[in-house]
Amino acid sequence: MNLAASILEGNRLALARALSWVENDTPQGREVLSTLFPRTGQAHMIGVTGAPGTGKSSLVNQLARHFRQPPDGSQPCRVAIVAVDPTSPFTGGAILGDRIRMRDLTGDPGVFIRSMASRGSLGGLASATAAVVQLFDAAGFDVILIETVGVGQAEVDIARLAHTTLVIEAPGMGDDIQAIKAGILEIADILVINKADQPGVENTERALRGMLDLAASHPDWFPPIQRTVATLGIGIPDLAEAIHHHRQHLFHSGEWQHRDRLRLQSELEQLLKETLVAQWRETIPDTLYQRTLEDLSERRISPHQAVHTLVHGGQP
Amino acid sequence: MNLAASILEGNRLALARALSWVENDTPQGREVLSTLFPRTGQAHMIGVTGAPGTGKSSLVNQLARHFRQPPDGSQPCRVAIVAVDPTSPFTGGAILGDRIRMRDLTGDPGVFIRSMASRGSLGGLASATAAVVQLFDAAGFDVILIETVGVGQAEVDIARLAHTTLVIEAPGMGDDIQAIKAGILEIADILVINKADQPGVENTERALRGMLDLAASHPDWFPPIQRTVATLGIGIPDLAEAIHHHRQHLFHSGEWQHRDRLRLQSELEQLLKETLVAQWRETIPDTLYQRTLEDLSERRISPHQAVHTLVHGGQP
Repeated sequence: MNLAASILEGNRLALARALSWVENDTPQGREVLSTLFPRTGQAHMIGVTGAPGTGKSSLVNQLARHFRQPPDGSQPCRVAIVAVDPTSPFTGGAILGDRIRMRDLTGDPGVFIRSMASRGSLGGLASATAAVVQLFDAAGFDVILIETVGVGQAEVDIARLAHTTLVIEAPGMGDDIQAIKAGILEIADILVINKADQPGVENTERALRGMLDLAASHPDWFPPIQRTVATLGIGIPDLAEAIHHHRQHLFHSGEWQHRDRLRLQSELEQLLKETLVAQWRETIPDTLYQRTLEDLSERRISPHQAVHTLVHGGQP
Repeated sequence: MNLAASILEGNRLALARALSWVENDTPQGREVLSTLFPRTGQAHMIGVTGAPGTGKSSLVNQLARHFRQPPDGSQPCRVAIVAVDPTSPFTGGAILGDRIRMRDLTGDPGVFIRSMASRGSLGGLASATAAVVQLFDAAGFDVILIETVGVGQAEVDIARLAHTTLVIEAPGMGDDIQAIKAGILEIADILVINKADQPGVENTERALRGMLDLAASHPDWFPPIQRTVATLGIGIPDLAEAIHHHRQHLFHSGEWQHRDRLRLQSELEQLLKETLVAQWRETIPDTLYQRTLEDLSERRISPHQAVHTLVHGGQP
């Protein structure tokens, strides 16, 4: 059986199996990705990030439903949701989120949901997410929503994978220095104030607008601020419209291609690193490595001296 | 002037300058670290992590004050605080936190506070933090408190640098699936319920205890749960006592040395990676690299084929 062909035919079981391989970076996973790679570059990747409690999951679900049933009667998109939960590094915290979502979108063959917990090491999650997104892209999904639960560095890096990044805020949190960070605003292509039926929405919008003016790193796209109440579906069509505008902007400005290239370059560099280190490790006797590590632990040599010893063969 | 010697004499200006070099990974920074490296391995590194709003900063300040003025009249420790704020990847969000702390601890020559914002790339923050902590260790600080603001993967990895990791919770947040994650509990050596004068503290403690029993990955150290009200100084001496116990446990079980070795090994591997890639880049013609990147962008070759081309010289 040819797995890649089954995936292209829309076989969900084949896709699920390949996703697991790709997520765990197995040889088969790498092979499937390589085979399907020429098909990538088509999907619109939308990153969704923001602090816990802002209602990101509801918003992502509503957007997915909107893309599945466009009110203007246009062709429905195939939608993938990748939910990244780096706060559960060891156990399967991501599974719970999956079950909650299922109720809402299950049974729709045009939607595929994948939750990812951390791979246990810095960087591992970002590259596993990149690979999973690439497979969805190759499999013909038109829109890929990448939702990250946290607001740390890893989540920011994952959001940056996307063509369009939504940063979600909620009223009340906006006045708190913990919640609004100028830094997170700088990655926003679109700002969303969700739970906009709650008190304080005016203050939040004013604060965000002030910080946007300060950040001002947007030569030709100024991030709009959209209000939504995701649980009631309010504001979703307007938000989808803003996302569509940003997509047009990316195409017309050449930014789409630019971001695509940057993404591929960073993937290439990551792979190069892994390959070079693996190659090098085969040339170095394990006894030398262990002895150097021992010298390091005993503080007889510094880390830089240890690298020198290992790379330049014994002469520090 | 010998900077390393000035640092060992307790010159704060010299330390501040070296910290900047080390944080930015300059050649001078690497030299100072190498010179001082034999002095490292003495400090007790205490990681403090937890969700925003749990009162981490107050707790860290109170602990610092406690270590400075031990109520039992023992020798005061020299204390460094490293505040890591990965949610401000681009602008200086970390500065604000610094100013707030200053009021509390400023003027005490036995305390040194350093705030770190992100270096803009995944992994960069963790290695910069490791280097800064190493310099404090070499400079003779007895206790290094490493506070991370976020709860994402990067923050978990930073907390793991430490000998003793405190995970901070607060009542009310404990009942929310967002706030308590089995994963974050697994890195906890000590659990702290701060704001323990607020309603819901019993529920939070019960929930935490239940999850601790489930996690059960602690062969010979079962994490105690400490209640504190950091703003009032309540529970701080007991918490300090628990930290002291954990330190004793690390020594007696050999875990102190084990963690030290793991930390140095991961630093060595990181440095090796950087060195090998830099070396390799010098051997590869830039035109070949650019052409390969172009082929990749046009989807003529896959990332794995690109690596093959670059590493094995043109024969995919």
